Amino acid sequence: MKEIRRIKGGVTSPSGFTANAVYAGIKRRSKGVLDLVLIYSECPAIAAGVFTTNKIKAAPVRLSIKNIGSGKARAIIVNSGNANCCNGKNGRKDALAMVNGVGKIMNLNPKNVLAASTGVIGRRLPIQKILRHLPELVGGLSGSGGRIAARGIMTTDTVPKEAALEIKAGGRIVTIGGIAKGVGMIAPNMATMLCFITTDAAVEGSALKSALKYAVESSFNRISIDGDMSTNDTVVILANGKAGNPVISKGSRDFKRFSEALLSLTTILSKKILSDGEGATKLVEIEVKGAANRKDAEKVARQIANSPLVKTMLNGADPNWGRIAGACGAANARINEGLLDISICGYNVFRHGEPLKVNYNRLHRLLQRKDISVSVNLNAGKYSGMHWTCDLSKEYVRINSSYST
Amino acid sequence: MKEIRRIKGGVTSPSGFTANAVYAGIKRRSKGVLDLVLIYSECPAIAAGVFTTNKIKAAPVRLSIKNIGSGKARAIIVNSGNANCCNGKNGRKDALAMVNGVGKIMNLNPKNVLAASTGVIGRRLPIQKILRHLPELVGGLSGSGGRIAARGIMTTDTVPKEAALEIKAGGRIVTIGGIAKGVGMIAPNMATMLCFITTDAAVEGSALKSALKYAVESSFNRISIDGDMSTNDTVVILANGKAGNPVISKGSRDFKRFSEALLSLTTILSKKILSDGEGATKLVEIEVKGAANRKDAEKVARQIANSPLVKTMLNGADPNWGRIAGACGAANARINEGLLDISICGYNVFRHGEPLKVNYNRLHRLLQRKDISVSVNLNAGKYSGMHWTCDLSKEYVRINSSYST
Repeated sequence: MKEIRRIKGGVTSPSGFTANAVYAGIKRRSKGVLDLVLIYSECPAIAAGVFTTNKIKAAPVRLSIKNIGSGKARAIIVNSGNANCCNGKNGRKDALAMVNGVGKIMNLNPKNVLAASTGVIGRRLPIQKILRHLPELVGGLSGSGGRIAARGIMTTDTVPKEAALEIKAGGRIVTIGGIAKGVGMIAPNMATMLCFITTDAAVEGSALKSALKYAVESSFNRISIDGDMSTNDTVVILANGKAGNPVISKGSRDFKRFSEALLSLTTILSKKILSDGEGATKLVEIEVKGAANRKDAEKVARQIANSPLVKTMLNGADPNWGRIAGACGAANARINEGLLDISICGYNVFRHGEPLKVNYNRLHRLLQRKDISVSVNLNAGKYSGMHWTCDLSKEYVRINSSYST
Repeated sequence: MKEIRRIKGGVTSPSGFTANAVYAGIKRRSKGVLDLVLIYSECPAIAAGVFTTNKIKAAPVRLSIKNIGSGKARAIIVNSGNANCCNGKNGRKDALAMVNGVGKIMNLNPKNVLAASTGVIGRRLPIQKILRHLPELVGGLSGSGGRIAARGIMTTDTVPKEAALEIKAGGRIVTIGGIAKGVGMIAPNMATMLCFITTDAAVEGSALKSALKYAVESSFNRISIDGDMSTNDTVVILANGKAGNPVISKGSRDFKRFSEALLSLTTILSKKILSDGEGATKLVEIEVKGAANRKDAEKVARQIANSPLVKTMLNGADPNWGRIAGACGAANARINEGLLDISICGYNVFRHGEPLKVNYNRLHRLLQRKDISVSVNLNAGKYSGMHWTCDLSKEYVRINSSYST
C-alpha cells in the first residue's frame, strides 16, 4: 500500500470506536437537527488534546484540560448550540454533570470522560434536557455512527466534516479518523473550532502528544491566529491500540509515519473548515518566502490572511494587488520595500519594489477562480511560511449580525 | 471666552492660510468631483508631522518625511484617487515632480512643500495631468478655500470633514483648523487617513511636535491599530505665527492649553471619520478599566474594537454579549475570568465571571442605538484605556470588494 491511504469514514473508522448523535433540544428544532454527540472507545485509550489559548475558557474546556491530564480517556460528550462559556459556577456544574452523567450510565470513571460545547456564549446550558437524552444517546452508539457525530457537532457549518486514513505501522494496518466543525471567518476568528480524532494505533502517551501538537501547529494553527482563538476551541485524539501494532514511541520510523498521517488528516479537515467558512466563496493559500526568520514569514502570511481589505478584494475578484503590499508592510517583520516581490495565482505584479505591467482584465479573471494563491517573496532570507484563508463576503456579515437571535 | 471655543471652518480659518481644490482628472469624472488640493501659508510656518508606521510607504510619504525634517513648510499638495504607492522609481519621480511643480509656480523652495496622496495602490500617478492643473490650483487659492479642500481629499468618504477652534494664548486669540479624510473600516484598517491642520499660533518647533504626537496618540491612534496603518497615513500641522501671540514653548501654560485644543480638534475629526466609516451605521466607544497596566487596557480595548464577530454583532444589534468576553480573553493581557465585568450601554451583563440575568429584548433595543458604549472592568489594577470603532456591515464588504474597479 501507499504510505498514506485515504479511506471513506471518520471517527468510527478505526477499530473499537463507536459514536452517536441525538437531538436533545439545545438548538432550535428543524428537520434532521442534532445537538448532542458521544464518541466512545470500547477499551481504554491514550488521550492527548490541544485547547484554546483564550484566557476566557468555556467550562467544558477547563474540565477536559483537567481530565486529560491523566493521559487517558474513554468517551467524549459534545453538545452544539450552546458554548457553556461565561456561565460562572453554573457552567462548571453543568459541564461536570455532563461527564458524570455519561460516567454513570456507561459505568466509566467520569475523569475518563471529556466534554466539549459550541454555540452561543453566556446562556445557561439546558442541562436537564442533556441528561434526559443520555440514555438514548448511549443506547444508539454504533460503529457506523461517525457520520451523524460529524453532523451533531455542526453550528453554522453547512456540511459535516470527516476524514479517515490508513497507514502501515509495525506490519499492521492502522486507521486514523476525525470529525471537525468549522469556525466563523477562520482568521481573525473567535468562533469555535472542534476536532475529534480517533485511532486504533497503539501509541505512547508522550508520542501521541507530540504528534498532535505538530499536526495542529501545521494545519489548524495556519488557518487561525495564535492568541485570538475562541473560548471553546478543542482538538482531542484518542488512541486505543486495537490495531495491535507494536507501541509507537517517539523518534521511531513508525512515529514519523504516524505523525505525517495525522498531519494529513488535520490538513484535510482544515481545508474542509476553510471551504465552509461563513460566507466563504474562495480558498486562499498564502505563501511567504525569503523571510529573515520563520517568525517573520508567519507574521507576514498572517497579516495578509487577516486583512479585511485583502479578503474583500478577493471576494470581489478586484485586481487591487496593492492591498497585499500594504498588508505586508503592516506586519511587524523585517521588510524592505525595494526587495519585495508579489504574485497572484502565478501572475507577477510587483518585483523588487517596482510594479510590473499588469493586465488588469487578466488579473481579474485569475481572481475569479475558487482557489487563489498569493505568493510574496521578501528576499531577505531563507525562511518561508504558509497560511490559508477565505474571502470576506456580505454573507459572512449576514450570518454574524444575527447569530444569537 | 471659554477655554476652547468651537467655530465654523477648517484649514483656512486661521489667519494667513489659503487653500484650493480642482479636478485634475485623476478620479473618474462625476459631478463636482475634486482630486487635487493645495494648502498654503502666506508666510513661513513651523511644521510637524506624524506618518504611517507601515514598512511599505507611499512615495509622497517618504518625501514629506524628508522635507519636514527642516521643521518648516509653506504648502501641502495633495491628490486623491491614486495613492502613488508601490510605484517604484516612477513613484518617487512623480512625488518629487508634484512638490517641484508647486515650488516653481509659487516661487517656493520645493523642500518647503509637503505632498500626500490617497487612493488605489500600484497604479502610476497621472503626473502630467497634475502638473497641467497646478496653475489653476494656485490661481484659485483663497481664504475661504478650506471647505473645497476638505472635499478634494475625499475618497470613499461620503461627507467632507473639517473643524476649527479658538483658544486664547498670551492674550491673543489663536485659531486651529483642520481637514481630514477617512479610512476603510477604521480598525483593522489599511485604508488611508489624511489630516491637515493649520494654526496661526506662534509655536516652537519642538513644542508643536510634542503637541501633535500627544493629540494623534489620544485620538487617531485610538481608532486604528499601531503597526497596521495604511501605506499613506499622514497627519501634518503648520503653524505660521500670524496670531501674534508670544511663542508657545514646551511646558508653559499656553502649551498645555494649545495641546488640549489640538487634541479636541483631532478628537472631533476622529469621530467624524468613524461616523463616516465605510458602511458604518454605529459609533462604538469601548472603555477598558481596572487593567494591571496601561498597555493591557489598550490591548483589550483594541481586541474588542477589531473583532469582526463583535463588529457584526453590533451591526445586527444582536445581544450576543459573549463575543465581547471572547475578544477580551483573546487579548494578550492579564485577564482573570473570575474578576471580569462587562456592560453594554450601561446595562450590566457579566459581573465577576458570572452572567447576570439579561433581558435580551431590552439589550437588543439598547444595541439598536447609533451610539453604543461597551465597558469592561478587568478588576486587576487601576489603568484604563479607550478605543473607538464602528460596526461591520454588508455595505463595507460591497464597497471594498470592488474598490479599484
